[in-house]
Amino acid sequence: MLFTDIHYLDENYHLVPHASVGVRDGRIAYLGTAPPADTAVWGRVIDGKERLLIPGFFNLHSHTAMTLLRGYGENLTLHDWLTKRIFPFEAHLNRDDIYWGTLLGCAEMLRYGIVSTSDMYLHTEAEAEAFLKSGVKANIAACVSCFDQGDYHQHADYSLLREQLSHYHGCADGRLQLELMLHAEYTSSEEKIYNVATAAAELGVGIHVHVSETASEVAGCQERHDGRTPVAYLADCGIFDVPVTAAHCVHLAEEDFAVLAQKNVNVATCPKSNLKLASGICPVEKLLAAGVNVALGTDSVSSNNNLDFIEEMRIFALLQKGISGDATQISTAQALAAATRCGAKAQRRADCGSIRQGNRADLVMLDISQPHMHPAHDLLSNLIYAASGSDVMLTMVDGVICYENGDWPLLDIEKIYAETEKSRLRILAELG
Amino acid sequence: MLFTDIHYLDENYHLVPHASVGVRDGRIAYLGTAPPADTAVWGRVIDGKERLLIPGFFNLHSHTAMTLLRGYGENLTLHDWLTKRIFPFEAHLNRDDIYWGTLLGCAEMLRYGIVSTSDMYLHTEAEAEAFLKSGVKANIAACVSCFDQGDYHQHADYSLLREQLSHYHGCADGRLQLELMLHAEYTSSEEKIYNVATAAAELGVGIHVHVSETASEVAGCQERHDGRTPVAYLADCGIFDVPVTAAHCVHLAEEDFAVLAQKNVNVATCPKSNLKLASGICPVEKLLAAGVNVALGTDSVSSNNNLDFIEEMRIFALLQKGISGDATQISTAQALAAATRCGAKAQRRADCGSIRQGNRADLVMLDISQPHMHPAHDLLSNLIYAASGSDVMLTMVDGVICYENGDWPLLDIEKIYAETEKSRLRILAELG
Repeated sequence: MLFTDIHYLDENYHLVPHASVGVRDGRIAYLGTAPPADTAVWGRVIDGKERLLIPGFFNLHSHTAMTLLRGYGENLTLHDWLTKRIFPFEAHLNRDDIYWGTLLGCAEMLRYGIVSTSDMYLHTEAEAEAFLKSGVKANIAACVSCFDQGDYHQHADYSLLREQLSHYHGCADGRLQLELMLHAEYTSSEEKIYNVATAAAELGVGIHVHVSETASEVAGCQERHDGRTPVAYLADCGIFDVPVTAAHCVHLAEEDFAVLAQKNVNVATCPKSNLKLASGICPVEKLLAAGVNVALGTDSVSSNNNLDFIEEMRIFALLQKGISGDATQISTAQALAAATRCGAKAQRRADCGSIRQGNRADLVMLDISQPHMHPAHDLLSNLIYAASGSDVMLTMVDGVICYENGDWPLLDIEKIYAETEKSRLRILAELG
Repeated sequence: MLFTDIHYLDENYHLVPHASVGVRDGRIAYLGTAPPADTAVWGRVIDGKERLLIPGFFNLHSHTAMTLLRGYGENLTLHDWLTKRIFPFEAHLNRDDIYWGTLLGCAEMLRYGIVSTSDMYLHTEAEAEAFLKSGVKANIAACVSCFDQGDYHQHADYSLLREQLSHYHGCADGRLQLELMLHAEYTSSEEKIYNVATAAAELGVGIHVHVSETASEVAGCQERHDGRTPVAYLADCGIFDVPVTAAHCVHLAEEDFAVLAQKNVNVATCPKSNLKLASGICPVEKLLAAGVNVALGTDSVSSNNNLDFIEEMRIFALLQKGISGDATQISTAQALAAATRCGAKAQRRADCGSIRQGNRADLVMLDISQPHMHPAHDLLSNLIYAASGSDVMLTMVDGVICYENGDWPLLDIEKIYAETEKSRLRILAELG
């Protein structure tokens, strides 16, 4: 496939206008200001006039199947939202619900230019099958240790885990990766936390964990664990001795920054979800200053409530400016990096995250012809501050077109709508 | 015109499913759960399947022609942004630039469901002609008192003002209204401020003014005026003795709230712009508690950088939750009210702002068929938290379709792009 006469953002986010970008064997095989000599052998040619090609987005914190709960539980405190709406609904979810809910989320992600996600939810196989089907890359946090009490309890099961790993870890040419899920300090016993750390180290996989999302989580942890913050406590338990994605990190103590940096913890900040649940605002500038890799995540749509990653980038940058009182914080390049290459790095996908020859062809083509993209003093600025996820015309993962102009070639969108609606109505009926 | 089988949000924002909405003589003439008996006489019938009809948006603070400066001046402090980028560029703007720039902004507003705006800029006639052409309603703040120094100086000219009023105030069946512009305390002499207050009272028109946008503006005012805040000082000058839209109101003293409430000042909060320029966050809950009418504004796209009013509503609500630590602040109904009926009230348009029989037909039809609008536990929540301005399929002002599916029936969009690009390139060349 060959894009011709297209503007693209190179790995340094400089605009290369009217260029050609060739894709072969799932990788970016040609980049040039002139078309390749052998245009005819590249297959389909896409005219890039009034289009912008950017690297696909990496969503570093999702609970994709929770698309089923979009708008279910609004204007509630975090506690009421969880205990009165989310947990009761989730208690009724079965494997099929999660398969179809994940597919609905995948359709939205692809429509908005997300090529990869780090997902954390129940029923690992259902998630994995949905991601395989959709074409989206995923680092799936296998559910060996969810909540310690209640309906979410599952015992650490090495044999099941090994089986899941042999099935899914690295499958589809590396498109799927498995990690271990540790829900959070406040939902896990110390024994469970040590088990997850040990298993991850033994099996050579990473861990995805919620860390310091709310002030009360931090206060509770300090009470439970001799004054240690979640960061300090999880570090002591060995959780950070393998590659880790720590979601949220909103409430950090001064001494936490050095720990996160020294342990190479990847932070997935979820600005929209943190605002909506009134959890607070992640101290991104201080994390960056400490040398921490900060990627961006949506969290679930039940607290977001969409997967528009362009909007997520925008709010990420706007918030840091507005809260700090310093309008120079988070440049447009930093915002795009958090949404792309920093996420790819956190997923340990070395050949992803930017438009560079030889990298995986994870590409997103945007329409830049509409009023909100005029004029174009600065296309990178227009991308971060004026564009919308709806401007995405095409999303390609590993060279495969997974979304194009209202169509998902790999998915039956009407069936996804029908099945998710069936799940939703059944669960509401069960809830009475 | 008749919308059939359509969901709409009534004046209390309750969802009326599968309804019929009829438009005649520019007004909402039929609302019912069944189609009217005389379907045939309503003219064009629009099938509302998988569509949602909502009241059009009222944007209470814009500088529409500044679309020309979108993305021109990123990641700068407010001071550098103004003095190094905005003011030098604006010094080169002529009447035609402003006409075409305003039209480009109007095209974007209509595309995103904005039916009316309260605009503040230079060259009043050029603005007025553009709004007339576009179909957008506008309360235009006539430029009798801009900056006191520099290129923006214009003397208060009653004869010119009376001429402008006789031409444009109430024209197009009330679609255009004129107000007086007072840029701000910090850019106006006391004499000018009194002149504007006197002129507005004599001429029976409102005033549109920037108030307490930044901390330094408040500190400077207090230094210049015996410790009085901009709110206290402008009240003393008589500015609040006529209907007023006060943009921003980010930095308010405790005693300001009662003044704003007592004087019936309408506050236009601009959350995205205030974040981007790192000005701070408007204390909306305290304003509402004091009984102040709070409407929503975009400010200009040079500090926003788009006119997506659904996103503006979303960020408005998210911010208040996130900053307060109280996730129950700003309900979805409050967010929609701020974007519609509170704005209509501030513009003193009694027959606008909600879907009610007899009201002006200011209607926006949204596509609710895409993945990000599934499932629909709560369509109002999906509108505020999941939808995008890009979901707008049709925008109608006073019963006239001004935008529909990528087309602006009243505008030549290609000519607007060409003329604004010509303006932009000429000014950049003049700036060297």
